Amino acid sequence: MRIPIDRESQLPLYKQIANFLISEIQSGELLPATKLPSTREMALELGINRITVSSSYAELEAKGYIYTRLGSGTYVASPIEDHRSRNKEAQSKTSWPLWQQRLLAQSVLPTELERDRIGISTSIKDDVISFAGGQGAVELFPADDFRKSLYTVLLRDKTEALEYGDYAGYAPLRATITHILASQGIHAQPGNILITTGSQQAFALVAGLLLHPGDVILVESPTYATAIDLFSSLGAQLVGVPVDEYGMQVDLVEDLLRTVHPKMIYTIPSFQNPTGVSLSGGRRRQLVALAEHYNVPILEDEFVGDLRYEGRSQPALKGLDPGGYVIYTGTFSKMLMPGLRVGYLLACGPVYERLLARKRITDLATSNLIQRALEAYITVGRYEAHLHRARRTYRLRRDSMVAELKNHMPDGTKWITPQGGLFIWVQLPEGVIVNKLYPEALKEKVDFAPGSLFYPAEKSFNHIRLNFAMHNPERMAEGISRLGVAIRRCMRLK
Amino acid sequence: MRIPIDRESQLPLYKQIANFLISEIQSGELLPATKLPSTREMALELGINRITVSSSYAELEAKGYIYTRLGSGTYVASPIEDHRSRNKEAQSKTSWPLWQQRLLAQSVLPTELERDRIGISTSIKDDVISFAGGQGAVELFPADDFRKSLYTVLLRDKTEALEYGDYAGYAPLRATITHILASQGIHAQPGNILITTGSQQAFALVAGLLLHPGDVILVESPTYATAIDLFSSLGAQLVGVPVDEYGMQVDLVEDLLRTVHPKMIYTIPSFQNPTGVSLSGGRRRQLVALAEHYNVPILEDEFVGDLRYEGRSQPALKGLDPGGYVIYTGTFSKMLMPGLRVGYLLACGPVYERLLARKRITDLATSNLIQRALEAYITVGRYEAHLHRARRTYRLRRDSMVAELKNHMPDGTKWITPQGGLFIWVQLPEGVIVNKLYPEALKEKVDFAPGSLFYPAEKSFNHIRLNFAMHNPERMAEGISRLGVAIRRCMRLK
Repeated sequence: MRIPIDRESQLPLYKQIANFLISEIQSGELLPATKLPSTREMALELGINRITVSSSYAELEAKGYIYTRLGSGTYVASPIEDHRSRNKEAQSKTSWPLWQQRLLAQSVLPTELERDRIGISTSIKDDVISFAGGQGAVELFPADDFRKSLYTVLLRDKTEALEYGDYAGYAPLRATITHILASQGIHAQPGNILITTGSQQAFALVAGLLLHPGDVILVESPTYATAIDLFSSLGAQLVGVPVDEYGMQVDLVEDLLRTVHPKMIYTIPSFQNPTGVSLSGGRRRQLVALAEHYNVPILEDEFVGDLRYEGRSQPALKGLDPGGYVIYTGTFSKMLMPGLRVGYLLACGPVYERLLARKRITDLATSNLIQRALEAYITVGRYEAHLHRARRTYRLRRDSMVAELKNHMPDGTKWITPQGGLFIWVQLPEGVIVNKLYPEALKEKVDFAPGSLFYPAEKSFNHIRLNFAMHNPERMAEGISRLGVAIRRCMRLK
Repeated sequence: MRIPIDRESQLPLYKQIANFLISEIQSGELLPATKLPSTREMALELGINRITVSSSYAELEAKGYIYTRLGSGTYVASPIEDHRSRNKEAQSKTSWPLWQQRLLAQSVLPTELERDRIGISTSIKDDVISFAGGQGAVELFPADDFRKSLYTVLLRDKTEALEYGDYAGYAPLRATITHILASQGIHAQPGNILITTGSQQAFALVAGLLLHPGDVILVESPTYATAIDLFSSLGAQLVGVPVDEYGMQVDLVEDLLRTVHPKMIYTIPSFQNPTGVSLSGGRRRQLVALAEHYNVPILEDEFVGDLRYEGRSQPALKGLDPGGYVIYTGTFSKMLMPGLRVGYLLACGPVYERLLARKRITDLATSNLIQRALEAYITVGRYEAHLHRARRTYRLRRDSMVAELKNHMPDGTKWITPQGGLFIWVQLPEGVIVNKLYPEALKEKVDFAPGSLFYPAEKSFNHIRLNFAMHNPERMAEGISRLGVAIRRCMRLK
């Protein structure tokens, strides 16, 4: 078997091999039950490392294209469609235990349901330009520096880095976080910081502690999709507060506090997900005052607060906290790298110890090794330098996207240019419905996040969320041009 | 300031410096408000890397011994006792929001409460020989190989290793896990594996899905302490099934299934925590048959199933599963390194998708980088080799501990020699109560896990759990000798 490999490609070798084999299997060049060369043979033939071949085979196996018989070898599986239909059949209602059948009747998470309805697939093909993601530019990930930090830390701390570590998180990293927060005007003690497995876990800990089935939670409408699923899974009732260009419409909050008695307010005050807008200074003060007056905790999600490209920075709600009302959450996923899964929360008062206890029963602790490497990587100076670089790149990309939107969008398309963050929230021309647009866009090989995913209750179907940080200007121009074609086609289909 | 450092010591340099400064501060040699040298100055003076000094300072700051004024320098803080009393005062009931004050009234987790009662401190001093931990021997952690795997993976996959990755876990790692399971007689598809942040998260996902407030769960009595806290936190009612030398007394289970209608059975069938005993083959079959007949899911915790030193291996409950009744959990924490925080569960049927959805809202995914490094590290062959090494070392250590117990324990002390795992469960001589023994043991500078932590309901106070894997024979002999002294003193105190 001759497998073409390209050592200069961005695509890792193991993936090139896996992709080639998949196309051979799908086209029928490789028939079911064909025995593949051993990893050793193929490594020799291609002049590459055996571990690379193993990785390819593992990927193919996980995807169901091949299977391994221990002591015999690796074989091409029957076509994947067969596998799926066999699975479907096996999952028919009657073959599983009764307690499992009952699970089928349980409510599905709202945004999962919406994803299903729209037909969102998690495996977007390589030739699709996707604006759907929630992360920053991969080329800015400090992979090399981080690799060195990992190496240094394992040499320095040896096996200590591989033990369980402190439930609350690695103490020096907590100290570093207080320094980063101090540079943003938040004064915190390391003893009030709790390291979490991404900020998603911080939300889960706080909501798990403070929300009970039937409780009301106020959220922005629209808001972060996975937070909607989290709060819903706890049986909470989500009440949306509309968002305008100055963020959550806080003047509507007091009435809600009086009438629906929420147990918590969840807000993304800076460069909000998905709208990109920021809560004004006045509204920030007003919201914190309301929380104090009505005795309601605020969960502050500062996922990209650092990524401001222009305009005056606003104080964090935590910075305005009169004492114990605001639980602040931050993350290294957006600024550095999502694959680390390190976030944190800052909480004062008795709530901290209870969140710590929940952290322990949830997953004992976040990876000690990753925390130590992160601590070795982030000096305040390095963080500032990385932030500076990220801001410069993302500001240019935001400007490119706005320019391309002006070029390619039909009349009637609207958006507010955000002052920071990762997202532009685009309102489609009248009559273009996001669920109709989605399949058309995929035909054009462009992808986005449908706006209907982000609504806690009554959905709106005429917005989409675009991530402007992920692609360079050329790819962005191509993607937005494709999107324009899809929208125009949708308008004609009406 | 002359700081003595020892480059040959096992203790990392940054910790040596931190420890020295703590002793200087505690003894009053360094007075509050004294300015410390800058990290640059101290690094130059000691001829070490600046990052090492920064790590020391960060640790001291996290512990409250020093504080940093941005742009000014680092200073010795007021004595730590002052800090604590200030904190206590600040946490007085009246100064926090009402919603926080209400939290104070909420029930505390049962084993947390028991820890408080016994006075267990999480910061055990260096000169204490501790048999309390739940992990393997640090000197067996494959730190060097893992460092190389991390390095290789970051060179190979580059930024791809730092993206979010698949919610279910890195596909090639899931495939590898199915191969490891196959070698243990469990046939699994990668599509039924869900990677979790340690097996603790697997328990949290399963219990969160299947248990509701008021539901009964059957557990072994005694059982894993943090599982008790987890199930209790969900409002479940724990019913204990006593354990004898053949594991859970399964003949008592049918009556309980009929009378208390449990929604789940949680069991640690192999080298149980804390007793070290294993469920016999007959009881395994009986338990699975009961689960099928009474339509109850089994959560199987196989935390050290691989670590068998003698005797015939028993099939996993999952291997006996007639279809979808058993949810199996495994972990790399014990066999490899706890600091990775990588475990997994194996579930078939509709329950899998629902666990996956909960994983997503809990923390999105487990660190992609760590998963890829683990996958690169664990070939089946390497895993077997590591397992072989671990088994040899731990068998010898178990034998040493048994020998030392025979040497040093007073008459009336009893234990069952376990055939594998990490723990020996020791029954104290009549009249010696674990809560009385604990402070005596700490005086002798030896530590253990008090048995009362492990009981779901009615506690027993005459057992302790000893970890035999963590210390070499010399240190083990010294530790058990100290324990013998403490027990005898306790007997005289009666």
